[in-house]
Amino acid sequence: MKLLIPGPVTTRPEVRAAMDADFAPWDPDFRPLYAEVRARLAALAGHVLATHAVLPLQGAGHFAVEAAIRTLVPPEGGLLIPMVGNYAARMARLAREVGRRVVELPVSPVAPADAAAVGTALAADPTLSHVGFVYSETSSGIVHDVHAVGAAARGAGRRMLVDAVSAFGALPLDLSAQPEIDAAVFTANKCLEGVPGLAYVIARIDALRGAEGRAGSWSLDLADIFLAGERDGWGGFRFTPPAQVLAALRRALQLLADEGGPPARLARYRANARTLHEGMQAIGLTPYLASAVQGPIGVNVHAPADPAWSLENFVTALKARGFLISNFYNTARPSFRVGCIGAITPDDMDRFVAAVDAALQAMGVRDRGPDCQDRAASSG
Amino acid sequence: MKLLIPGPVTTRPEVRAAMDADFAPWDPDFRPLYAEVRARLAALAGHVLATHAVLPLQGAGHFAVEAAIRTLVPPEGGLLIPMVGNYAARMARLAREVGRRVVELPVSPVAPADAAAVGTALAADPTLSHVGFVYSETSSGIVHDVHAVGAAARGAGRRMLVDAVSAFGALPLDLSAQPEIDAAVFTANKCLEGVPGLAYVIARIDALRGAEGRAGSWSLDLADIFLAGERDGWGGFRFTPPAQVLAALRRALQLLADEGGPPARLARYRANARTLHEGMQAIGLTPYLASAVQGPIGVNVHAPADPAWSLENFVTALKARGFLISNFYNTARPSFRVGCIGAITPDDMDRFVAAVDAALQAMGVRDRGPDCQDRAASSG
Repeated sequence: MKLLIPGPVTTRPEVRAAMDADFAPWDPDFRPLYAEVRARLAALAGHVLATHAVLPLQGAGHFAVEAAIRTLVPPEGGLLIPMVGNYAARMARLAREVGRRVVELPVSPVAPADAAAVGTALAADPTLSHVGFVYSETSSGIVHDVHAVGAAARGAGRRMLVDAVSAFGALPLDLSAQPEIDAAVFTANKCLEGVPGLAYVIARIDALRGAEGRAGSWSLDLADIFLAGERDGWGGFRFTPPAQVLAALRRALQLLADEGGPPARLARYRANARTLHEGMQAIGLTPYLASAVQGPIGVNVHAPADPAWSLENFVTALKARGFLISNFYNTARPSFRVGCIGAITPDDMDRFVAAVDAALQAMGVRDRGPDCQDRAASSG
Repeated sequence: MKLLIPGPVTTRPEVRAAMDADFAPWDPDFRPLYAEVRARLAALAGHVLATHAVLPLQGAGHFAVEAAIRTLVPPEGGLLIPMVGNYAARMARLAREVGRRVVELPVSPVAPADAAAVGTALAADPTLSHVGFVYSETSSGIVHDVHAVGAAARGAGRRMLVDAVSAFGALPLDLSAQPEIDAAVFTANKCLEGVPGLAYVIARIDALRGAEGRAGSWSLDLADIFLAGERDGWGGFRFTPPAQVLAALRRALQLLADEGGPPARLARYRANARTLHEGMQAIGLTPYLASAVQGPIGVNVHAPADPAWSLENFVTALKARGFLISNFYNTARPSFRVGCIGAITPDDMDRFVAAVDAALQAMGVRDRGPDCQDRAASSG
């Protein structure tokens, strides 16, 4: 079964095999594993070990986003969040529940965020200390311009938190060239092609040093994780790490390097997305986004207007053909979502297009034109 | 290599093999796995699905302890914490950083907590809404009397939060018979013999219903996890779960049932601890605790007084013989700590005793009497 959901992703057998061992996390023999992961992640972010800390956090990416907000946004500051989709909305909720002020900047669901609008919004409200930005938004499939939005924040003298969960490891992110970014957040199980259960924040050391005692949560305090890493010199886990998940990530990072690093991985994902985008059109379906704004992480496709269409039945029919896609959508109009990341290739995507064609025929879906009625997005 | 640390534990190969798959967490095919884990955990806690919710939380047990405090202790309340060791101190720190008031009740490091003293402390301070209690304290090796302390809390009309991390799955815990317990916290990787990366809280539904909006953290809000579980009917994960870790836990829970449930597991752990406790004495070493108060989870042994002793060298010498113990101690006097839990048997413990004897001989440790100087405990 190939997972095209997008994330958790299809992993390589070597990655899963790395979990077939028991680990004693505090034993010195385990430290090279932590250190290797830290070094590889810092290199991926722009060789930033001198200026940034690589901070591990057990659990989901949301926890790491909350930790970044708690630790780095002062209570008297505030977050401007370009509302690029579902994950931007989640960042806003995380911030509000922590007690931080949020200003939401509307963004079209079918176009990249406008950096000039970010600059204008920041100029209008000097109390906004940070921009909270989702680099790649899986609910829409759009990759936003982290350089342009970062430049707007920098120009306004503000800081930035980047949710890079579905970007890091494939899409370019050079923190050494974007000093306005206080922290970038990501997880093991997206473009890094590990398994879920572990998040990381790469954060500026100068920002962390000013943030001690601010988080209001020992569990989610990045400044404390930083101090723990300074003390131990290799890791920064304060509590039992998900050791098998970490071992899988180490293997996954080695495989990323073997593949040729983020540029090679991005090229493969782009080829996956292009094969999918073109393949859907070739069999009469309509991608949600124009190819000019379609990102390489995930592709939404309009649901067919035919009354025989059912997302649930479609997902089941594809599963019988060896492919698993999301069983929900987050777009305004009915759609289905296909992930392009993980251990999959354009050949897999060709087979997927054939599977979609066969599934629609089996379901009796004849009218493959788009269902253009606005409806509430399904949950997920 | 056998891990005797105690926890993460030595796992069975079947448990690790369950991780060799990719999972789509939101796919309907994954729901029976969530539901099976939930049902088995509720049964272990006293068949409490009618009155309690089984709440999953990604990450470390500390996160779940913080979530229980945030969600269930009101800001105007407070926690009385019997200071039974390292994990009680951590609970106190977690509570204070959340902003909850903590009163620490001193407890002897070599004897069980006194329930009468808990009752007296509660009577003296009516604003203490909860008792925060560590059932099994791995830093000392003492299992405390959760029934007696619970009765004291109940008698005083207070609520209780139980850190059952190194207890659940082996030591008895019947939440149906202890209505004063609002929440019990545990993880997958101790007596349940799964791998690390996943915590659970079993909490009273009536307590959760009164706690909406209190947590001040979306990530660590048990009331929100409860609502998510009510909505989906099978799980309650709001964010990507550590799917492989969860699959390993399912297999581990099946193996626990096959073994005969917690009574059979406890009998095995008790036999492990007895074999160890007696075996240490047979080779001239001195256990830290009298056998009357020694719990079955982990055993501390006084470091030998011989100048040739070195904990680091000892750990290395044991590793060469196939056993991994903790490389730190939390006792007032120098000691080494040996875990008795996980997929190990009294035969393993016999082999371990022989390995200790051989390691001490190889190190040139002749005086095996206890080093009785008080020193600062080493970190861990």
